[in-house]
Amino acid sequence: MPYIPLESHLPGITGLLEYSKESAAPIRELTQILLRGPSTLSEGDRELIATIVSHGNQCKFCTTAHTAAADLYLGENDTAQKIKENIETAPVSEKMKALLTIAKLTGQSGKNVTPTEIERAKAAGATDIEIHDTVLIAALFCLYNRYVDGLATALPADAGYYNVLADRLVNHGYTRLPQGYDHLKK
Amino acid sequence: MPYIPLESHLPGITGLLEYSKESAAPIRELTQILLRGPSTLSEGDRELIATIVSHGNQCKFCTTAHTAAADLYLGENDTAQKIKENIETAPVSEKMKALLTIAKLTGQSGKNVTPTEIERAKAAGATDIEIHDTVLIAALFCLYNRYVDGLATALPADAGYYNVLADRLVNHGYTRLPQGYDHLKK
Repeated sequence: MPYIPLESHLPGITGLLEYSKESAAPIRELTQILLRGPSTLSEGDRELIATIVSHGNQCKFCTTAHTAAADLYLGENDTAQKIKENIETAPVSEKMKALLTIAKLTGQSGKNVTPTEIERAKAAGATDIEIHDTVLIAALFCLYNRYVDGLATALPADAGYYNVLADRLVNHGYTRLPQGYDHLKK
Repeated sequence: MPYIPLESHLPGITGLLEYSKESAAPIRELTQILLRGPSTLSEGDRELIATIVSHGNQCKFCTTAHTAAADLYLGENDTAQKIKENIETAPVSEKMKALLTIAKLTGQSGKNVTPTEIERAKAAGATDIEIHDTVLIAALFCLYNRYVDGLATALPADAGYYNVLADRLVNHGYTRLPQGYDHLKK
């Protein structure tokens, strides 16, 4: 039961973005820039960063939603699952292992990111902008995870919801997300 | 020494907002809406929320900056200091004690906010929107704290910097912050 009155057919973040439309607009815009804007990191890579941070914060709605989005981009459902189990043995590049580790640490605390992880990422070919974007995406999902869980938003009643949501995130992006979800019933 | 090349005369968040102007725009806009937009919480109250979260995340730049901004709004430098020491004995209303506690818990994890703290806030007169805004401001400062510390941004060399920054935040807000800081040397 959410702590504030949210539309019952809009679980997780979707009800919050509808509840407070004025603050939702820049949140959506920031997410669109970081996860869908021009980048040398693929959309799938960026959804994996969102996934590892949400997983670390134990935010079930965000973890499941971004796992589904990553799976759709990657065309398989193995990689997202494996990074959640163990980044080092997951089937991703050395650069992505380093960036996912930076994201995971940022999710715990910015202070946990040390020069060691940054040097590893740079040695694996990560650019300054990729490191910047990884930290900022991780920081953004700390916002999302706390917003979603701090107000005790509901999970969707039907797990199939996440696949519909992932399709929307992949094919339409983040900017106008809520309007597209009005038809989704819990 | 920051992990990415930031302008050395722009400490903390200011160098990051200059480094990535495209993502900075919605971050600034969101902050302006939440901390300076119309609200039944005063600007001083909202700066106290930013302060308690930044303090919990041990982000020195953000804690010092928002303490200075809260002090300026409140016209004294006692309250912000005291909430950092102990919310329960600080000279704020029962409603603010409840909201600051929600903010502090949100800063740790959204899951740490329980119905007990929400009921306390509502019993003390907090509205749904005030609770929503408290959680979202706390979540936003988790983003800021991780962005600032995850990239190892520099502290200002001169502590007087924070007073100049606070004056800017109080008198000009967040939206066009970085341009106003170009003249500030570390």
